[in-house]
Amino acid sequence: MSELEFAPRPEKKELDETLGFCPKFDTDGLIPAMAIDSETREPLMLAYMNEESLKLTLEKQEAVYYSRSRQELWHKGATSGHVQKVHEIRTDCDQDALILYVTQQGAGACHTGRRSCFYRAVSFDSNPAATTFVDDERTFDPDEVYGK
Amino acid sequence: MSELEFAPRPEKKELDETLGFCPKFDTDGLIPAMAIDSETREPLMLAYMNEESLKLTLEKQEAVYYSRSRQELWHKGATSGHVQKVHEIRTDCDQDALILYVTQQGAGACHTGRRSCFYRAVSFDSNPAATTFVDDERTFDPDEVYGK
Repeated sequence: MSELEFAPRPEKKELDETLGFCPKFDTDGLIPAMAIDSETREPLMLAYMNEESLKLTLEKQEAVYYSRSRQELWHKGATSGHVQKVHEIRTDCDQDALILYVTQQGAGACHTGRRSCFYRAVSFDSNPAATTFVDDERTFDPDEVYGK
Repeated sequence: MSELEFAPRPEKKELDETLGFCPKFDTDGLIPAMAIDSETREPLMLAYMNEESLKLTLEKQEAVYYSRSRQELWHKGATSGHVQKVHEIRTDCDQDALILYVTQQGAGACHTGRRSCFYRAVSFDSNPAATTFVDDERTFDPDEVYGK
């Protein structure tokens, strides 16, 4: 187990200006984390961390998420080689959301073979609601990386 | 009530490539949405939407969130004038997260008077965990905008 401790969470009125890192995990013990390419500023993916995965991320300086579907720690890139080197972590005013500025190793972050998971834009005027593909280029073959 | 309908959610294996917009709301009925400045690509804030607020956002092309603390619709800027004009909404591969590319009206998105809520970076080597202020400039006086 990690020896890293988070700071105690101060009262609400002091939360905006505290220098302690006191992340708030939701009732499932999770906090959302958006990974953004540190050079291009392209958003890559949004995933969740529990307390242990966040501590591991700080210690390894590589993104470790918590997979809600598999209910286990998810060291991003452990299977695909697509590790995310973490250069900076930002937290927001009430410390219940994170941004990771990362270098995405390998060709992409998304399991579909695309660089970013956010490859669809939502139309404003279709009913039922629809999307269009944007930034849709495949940068790797997921069957090669993950197996069929 | 809005007449806009979301698309039916297909099976998992079809989710990555469907053109329907079929957002997945969590067990509380919410989906996370990161607002990003459409020109500078600066992340501004992360908040949540329920089904109604997302439909209103699509219809108004202004960000309408759901406030978890107040448990009500939150038309961003209704009090402060700091409306977010929404130019594009992106959804991710499994459609359980959103990005809004916005023009932030007024001086900032954060209730503390800063442009972005993500004004603190987490240190990698402090224990207990600590942050430092970055991008910390106040762009407006919250007491003037929201009242004391």
